[in-house]
Amino acid sequence: MTVDPDSGLLSPVRAGTPAEASTGDEAWLRAMLDAEAALARAQARLGTVPAEAAAAITEAAGSARIDVVELARGSRATANPVVGLVQALTSAVGEIVPGAAEYVHRGSTSQDIFDTAMMLVADRTLRPLAADLDATAEALAGLAREHRDTTMAGRTLTAHAVPTTFGLKAAGWRQLVLDAAVRIRRVLDGGLPVSLGGAAGTLAAYIEYARLAGDARTEPADGSGGGGDDLAAAIDGDGYAGRLTAAFAVETGLAAPVLPWHSLRTPVVDLASALAFTAGALGKLAVDVETLTRTELGEVTEPAADGRGGSSAMPHKRNPVLATLIRSAALQVPVLAAGVTQSMLTEDERSAGVWHAEWQLIRECLRLTGGAAHTAAELARGLTAQPERMRANLASTHGLIVSERLSAALAPLLGKAKAKELLGEASRRAVREERPLREVLDELPAITEVLTPAALDGLVDPAAYTGAAGALVDRALGEPGAGGASA
Amino acid sequence: MTVDPDSGLLSPVRAGTPAEASTGDEAWLRAMLDAEAALARAQARLGTVPAEAAAAITEAAGSARIDVVELARGSRATANPVVGLVQALTSAVGEIVPGAAEYVHRGSTSQDIFDTAMMLVADRTLRPLAADLDATAEALAGLAREHRDTTMAGRTLTAHAVPTTFGLKAAGWRQLVLDAAVRIRRVLDGGLPVSLGGAAGTLAAYIEYARLAGDARTEPADGSGGGGDDLAAAIDGDGYAGRLTAAFAVETGLAAPVLPWHSLRTPVVDLASALAFTAGALGKLAVDVETLTRTELGEVTEPAADGRGGSSAMPHKRNPVLATLIRSAALQVPVLAAGVTQSMLTEDERSAGVWHAEWQLIRECLRLTGGAAHTAAELARGLTAQPERMRANLASTHGLIVSERLSAALAPLLGKAKAKELLGEASRRAVREERPLREVLDELPAITEVLTPAALDGLVDPAAYTGAAGALVDRALGEPGAGGASA
Amino acid sequence: MTVDPDSGLLSPVRAGTPAEASTGDEAWLRAMLDAEAALARAQARLGTVPAEAAAAITEAAGSARIDVVELARGSRATANPVVGLVQALTSAVGEIVPGAAEYVHRGSTSQDIFDTAMMLVADRTLRPLAADLDATAEALAGLAREHRDTTMAGRTLTAHAVPTTFGLKAAGWRQLVLDAAVRIRRVLDGGLPVSLGGAAGTLAAYIEYARLAGDARTEPADGSGGGGDDLAAAIDGDGYAGRLTAAFAVETGLAAPVLPWHSLRTPVVDLASALAFTAGALGKLAVDVETLTRTELGEVTEPAADGRGGSSAMPHKRNPVLATLIRSAALQVPVLAAGVTQSMLTEDERSAGVWHAEWQLIRECLRLTGGAAHTAAELARGLTAQPERMRANLASTHGLIVSERLSAALAPLLGKAKAKELLGEASRRAVREERPLREVLDELPAITEVLTPAALDGLVDPAAYTGAAGALVDRALGEPGAGGASA
Amino acid sequence: MTVDPDSGLLSPVRAGTPAEASTGDEAWLRAMLDAEAALARAQARLGTVPAEAAAAITEAAGSARIDVVELARGSRATANPVVGLVQALTSAVGEIVPGAAEYVHRGSTSQDIFDTAMMLVADRTLRPLAADLDATAEALAGLAREHRDTTMAGRTLTAHAVPTTFGLKAAGWRQLVLDAAVRIRRVLDGGLPVSLGGAAGTLAAYIEYARLAGDARTEPADGSGGGGDDLAAAIDGDGYAGRLTAAFAVETGLAAPVLPWHSLRTPVVDLASALAFTAGALGKLAVDVETLTRTELGEVTEPAADGRGGSSAMPHKRNPVLATLIRSAALQVPVLAAGVTQSMLTEDERSAGVWHAEWQLIRECLRLTGGAAHTAAELARGLTAQPERMRANLASTHGLIVSERLSAALAPLLGKAKAKELLGEASRRAVREERPLREVLDELPAITEVLTPAALDGLVDPAAYTGAAGALVDRALGEPGAGGASA
Repeated sequence: MTVDPDSGLLSPVRAGTPAEASTGDEAWLRAMLDAEAALARAQARLGTVPAEAAAAITEAAGSARIDVVELARGSRATANPVVGLVQALTSAVGEIVPGAAEYVHRGSTSQDIFDTAMMLVADRTLRPLAADLDATAEALAGLAREHRDTTMAGRTLTAHAVPTTFGLKAAGWRQLVLDAAVRIRRVLDGGLPVSLGGAAGTLAAYIEYARLAGDARTEPADGSGGGGDDLAAAIDGDGYAGRLTAAFAVETGLAAPVLPWHSLRTPVVDLASALAFTAGALGKLAVDVETLTRTELGEVTEPAADGRGGSSAMPHKRNPVLATLIRSAALQVPVLAAGVTQSMLTEDERSAGVWHAEWQLIRECLRLTGGAAHTAAELARGLTAQPERMRANLASTHGLIVSERLSAALAPLLGKAKAKELLGEASRRAVREERPLREVLDELPAITEVLTPAALDGLVDPAAYTGAAGALVDRALGEPGAGGASA
Repeated sequence: MTVDPDSGLLSPVRAGTPAEASTGDEAWLRAMLDAEAALARAQARLGTVPAEAAAAITEAAGSARIDVVELARGSRATANPVVGLVQALTSAVGEIVPGAAEYVHRGSTSQDIFDTAMMLVADRTLRPLAADLDATAEALAGLAREHRDTTMAGRTLTAHAVPTTFGLKAAGWRQLVLDAAVRIRRVLDGGLPVSLGGAAGTLAAYIEYARLAGDARTEPADGSGGGGDDLAAAIDGDGYAGRLTAAFAVETGLAAPVLPWHSLRTPVVDLASALAFTAGALGKLAVDVETLTRTELGEVTEPAADGRGGSSAMPHKRNPVLATLIRSAALQVPVLAAGVTQSMLTEDERSAGVWHAEWQLIRECLRLTGGAAHTAAELARGLTAQPERMRANLASTHGLIVSERLSAALAPLLGKAKAKELLGEASRRAVREERPLREVLDELPAITEVLTPAALDGLVDPAAYTGAAGALVDRALGEPGAGGASA
Repeated sequence: MTVDPDSGLLSPVRAGTPAEASTGDEAWLRAMLDAEAALARAQARLGTVPAEAAAAITEAAGSARIDVVELARGSRATANPVVGLVQALTSAVGEIVPGAAEYVHRGSTSQDIFDTAMMLVADRTLRPLAADLDATAEALAGLAREHRDTTMAGRTLTAHAVPTTFGLKAAGWRQLVLDAAVRIRRVLDGGLPVSLGGAAGTLAAYIEYARLAGDARTEPADGSGGGGDDLAAAIDGDGYAGRLTAAFAVETGLAAPVLPWHSLRTPVVDLASALAFTAGALGKLAVDVETLTRTELGEVTEPAADGRGGSSAMPHKRNPVLATLIRSAALQVPVLAAGVTQSMLTEDERSAGVWHAEWQLIRECLRLTGGAAHTAAELARGLTAQPERMRANLASTHGLIVSERLSAALAPLLGKAKAKELLGEASRRAVREERPLREVLDELPAITEVLTPAALDGLVDPAAYTGAAGALVDRALGEPGAGGASA
Repeated sequence: MTVDPDSGLLSPVRAGTPAEASTGDEAWLRAMLDAEAALARAQARLGTVPAEAAAAITEAAGSARIDVVELARGSRATANPVVGLVQALTSAVGEIVPGAAEYVHRGSTSQDIFDTAMMLVADRTLRPLAADLDATAEALAGLAREHRDTTMAGRTLTAHAVPTTFGLKAAGWRQLVLDAAVRIRRVLDGGLPVSLGGAAGTLAAYIEYARLAGDARTEPADGSGGGGDDLAAAIDGDGYAGRLTAAFAVETGLAAPVLPWHSLRTPVVDLASALAFTAGALGKLAVDVETLTRTELGEVTEPAADGRGGSSAMPHKRNPVLATLIRSAALQVPVLAAGVTQSMLTEDERSAGVWHAEWQLIRECLRLTGGAAHTAAELARGLTAQPERMRANLASTHGLIVSERLSAALAPLLGKAKAKELLGEASRRAVREERPLREVLDELPAITEVLTPAALDGLVDPAAYTGAAGALVDRALGEPGAGGASA
């Protein structure tokens, strides 16, 4: 049985990153074992599983050597890996404390364990991811602050529009990253919930076993359990289900849901949405870095590192590899997340296939976005602006980048039509003769009659036409960020 | 020039619904005109546009007869409809107050108007949508309360698993609808923002025109505007950009964003995500209703209405048409929303195409989800449970639906292996002979020795094995709902 | 009842194009009426509907004034518009020839009419679309031929790599467009099929009515129809179903399918795939045109036209609006098509919702792609290369664009390591000093010792390092194209 | 460095299947090494690399022990794994024949190797996949033949419509599977192409090295290579690029493309489309099997196997696990494929990120669909129909399933309105009183006056109202299948 490693060979964006480690098969197996152990301890807290049994299960879950490949292949018989896991864990517990084996997975269903594990994996992946977003935002804040007044061309529909600043650009990237961090933390803080419903979401078997445990302690004479109906109701009335859910939440460190969510997929969809948003936010940074890196623009440079971005065949090339990696993730996550959202249309108390379709999709969303965030932190920390190239590019249209301003300023002085005609003519001449617009304007008496040379100097200076860019940077950096771009 | 109506012929889920009306071309045109008028009034508030001009613009925006078809076709020359709109509005204003025409769209850019209009359309669509979600949730709460203890088969992977209640099912649907309402209101309350950035997100022209308006009032002697640099800085320092944004927000009833969001698409992506979630939540209701409506199940009935659900060819049929309509929307919105999320990867200060790809996608998300919510309210209000069919179906497996419970109960009495063997044999016999499991068990001395008839009666009664279903319904209905399924 | 026009206001890529007209509500209504009329004529061909009735139905279908908005709203009661259409058509036929009314939609089901109409709409949209692809390919062939040897920078990962030619670039775009045309024609030629299955895909009612029509002619004495079983079998054995399908195909101009495809969605998915491919192919052209249009690159110019691409605020700007429109479509169609492909998972003989989800998605795929093809033809016909800018950009890296070649050439002369070291040093100096690499190399004795000036001239000339570009253009243009890029 | 196995733990549909093995990291590494070796041999065929070097490279590629995890992690520095692979292979070759090392990857670029490897992986995955489709189709043909006349309820919008046969149902599934096989074979036969373009798609370095190899043999006196320009042209004119591409195709067993396709992604998109279609086709089978497996329907049974489909908690349950696995894949592939199709919008001669986004998506498409096909063959071979349950379900509506026929038959005898009224009344009574419609009709003189008991028997027999079902099965099975559902 040959088994491939899951190395990220086709996903370098996550190769070797924390998100890779926290989402791999072993991490998933670990989370499932953690869920089984936490369930036993939760039941022990309520007295419905012996404390020694819970301890034995916890110990076995911690030390069991379970072959994940065998588990995976075996899962084709049941459509999920928990059935095999329970067998393996039961046998491992039996080797430690034979009598404890029967308490493994007591009253439980595969989905309770699998979905709880999914939330544990999510939690373990989102925390470093959020830290990477913070680091990215902080580095971008530094760039925004440093380049608050570094003028560059603002570009729309691929063409120079009016001047802007690199500081505002960086502040915008940061704002998106903060928006992402808010959405990731909303998922974390809102509480990734445990899954606890039993076979069909009623927790009936948990309660039944609790009843039986109670019976066992009170030694009913007739062996009947004393009329299941009343007792179950009593246990239920007693809120056993709610208390078990709460205890399970405590033992896992997750939240307690309002209702079992086997077929109410809010937690998974919220997670996928937050990840798609985050990937998209980082993707915006990536596409802008790529554009600004273009040979003809050269306005930013990715951080250098040994061998990074090099091309074996073309020694002069430095590729924007970090942006490339990020963008590769950002292009994938939204469609993967759409697959997860569609999984809300899940029939019955548990679907035959829709639930199963979520698993790999959500894992890919987690690891691609986690890898992208890790990469983005590296990119942001090392990104260098090239103000000289920004200036040179600004000048490359001979001053036309301020034509909006000249238009506005000349209209009241010359009349709108006349102003437009003169400016149009001057612009065309500047381009045709490859001369600064300022020079051409100087030769037009209609202009020089209404504007002094100093006034003209002011009007054609791109650095003097950045509007509120500086103020916006200040505002964005002063902002606590919780509100996001749409605060 | 023939023009088709946008009738919902291929989207009956939204035909004639409020969401159709609030997202149509005329509604979009209205919102763009509202944005232009609000901008003029905002500038008038700050004294940079004459009040009379703002009044004239508002009047013209309210009364102008603009041919949306002509506008649409003309927009092929500029890739957006605002350029043509500004021309038409300018000319309409000119007919009212000639001198006011120059103040139309002053300092503005197409995206400011278009995106602000998009947020107005969203606001106008989300409010009735949220009301429909509330109505749906309320009707489902009624069902949950009424059927708190109506037992039915819980189904997993298409098969009967253990009993549940229709009340819990309805409470689950309601919980998802509440989750959706929370997400829609989060978008509404977080504030759909105005868009105000000017040509490249710096608001430079707004400031420039403000400066010129100031100049005009102070009549500078040299015609220079007094050194654009300093004055612009002063105006900027004065926070003109922030004040204009705030005033625009007041005039539109929208929120003020932290930064211009021309290329930071948080508001649109949040909107799309909330809509995809909502469509998915309603889709779960729809697929369950469809399943339960199946001829062989017959456990629920859609509300009857004249002609609805009838088949011309097959007089006996009643189709679940409302669920069908809802599901048709729920299948579309997640992929459409993925397209919107991908639009975060938008280059520069304004993309050439990525921005434009959002428009129709977000409109379809709005109207499909709005239509689905409207339809869901109708469905939920009229949905009828068929408890007799539920009981009949529960009984159709001859009692096997309680086998989980019997297993649990017999294991401590007989030993796990023996219990399993006996139960398996009894189950097979019950199925083979089409007799109730209860009868078969009665014939097994090994069973009757350990369980009294009364105890057996209790154990095989599906209604006595619904676990915490009732308590969960109580809990869910008592819950304020803000927490969603993952509270 | 206000009704919005479907004007393309949010989809300028298709506003006013042939694809808009051929996919609108009226076109869809027309196609459904055509399908009803063709069905009656097909039945008349086989003698199971009176010829006069078929003529009356055809006449009424041609002249009936049916309110599409009313139809759409009414369709909420049945989840499809055909039920209402049949009522309206029946009444229109009744006004012409009262006795013919009962032959409308005889034996039919809504899906037969709707899906046949969908194929008619597809056929009517794909034909002009294919012609637009041909026109695009032809124009691109002209560019490829004209610029066979126009050298420009080849760019990878945003940076200059090695030289290429604009001819090869254009030939590549053309190849993709040819690939798209092949895929569109495969759909057209493979045959868009009629849909004919009756209530559940068995054509039973068509056969039943045929049997009754036969009975009517032979006047059975007992009114029994003579034992439905045998006669139906006879009619079936006679191949009535197959003959009716064939006749329906002839009357509509569509193909006859192997099996009714109510729930076998091959035709719709094939259509969606071909459209997504086409949109993607045109999208590649669009993103390249946008990149080359960038202010700093300026290597191509979109065709000029009155007002097109202008910016009201910035008189100097010319936006690549055609590429923008195309890209906006190319970003949407793949996700829309994914929605269609997912509709293959349609349960039973007809799904409750999955079928319905296809309709608007496939219409948007058709009209967006049709609009994009129309726009691409305009773009390709008017696209202008700017060879001077290409040369200037090639030179902007001071000769480093040929470093791959120098590396290769020097290695055998100097040893690989020495060559690499020397070249690296020379490259860095050229960039630092902003001097041509050629000049720097001239100053290196290690180089001039092994290469004559003439040899060096040859090696550093970008135009002499375009590899097989010219030959590839010749080959691509000589190729009949049927093979596509993957021939 | 811990590394997870890629075990299919979250994708049981492919765990342990051929598609898993042929798409794993090691298989991808193998394919890249095969591509490097084939390239060297192709160059050797044309005399531009020494035959011994090619042999050494082939040997080293076959025996090299390359750590795929190290490769993956290293690829973060270059955004693709080929750079590291070339280093490792070069060093391995150097250990065998030192002088051969310099011929590794000669003139090549990462994308040539990676994309060729992708096509090799595709080829190796599609062949067994196609065989699995054949096996599935054959098994379904057996079911269609066996159950040609097994009557069952045809269901539309979840309700019984009219009778159909299980044979027609199976024939429909088979038709979709044949359609899929046609599309997969079209990809295989159309030719998965080698990728060969060099740094920017011009093959310039391949030609340059060929020129130098020629020079080396002719020992030019001046070391100049004799004027690169002319010689390169000569080599090009000689069609070296075309001959190398052809030789590479021969050595890999792949096809030769018209043009290098670095940024013309036809082959990948065609592949993704065929896979999405296939997954969808199998998904239709899966959802139907799931529906028919429902406890209340029970019309089909999945093949039994040790432990398969069992539930640990509920001993009576048999889950449709194979259908579940297939559906889980079918829900994922269309959205993954959409991501691939979007990758057509790839800028320049090689994109920074768009290319990279394809890799994992296409791998998942391959392995999920391959796993689904493997699973479908198992499902189809073991699927069992339950004709008795089909009959019982048919009867469960008391005969209403033939109401369409009765309507048609009675209308000419009683007048349409009268017939409708009588039938409606009789149907309601049959349902209300839970009696066969036949019985109720017998009590209506208006009916018995016009229809003999024998005629009535014929008309109410579901088995006598299956229309062309049998003929369609015959036709579909006789059909060579090449035409698909849309032939």
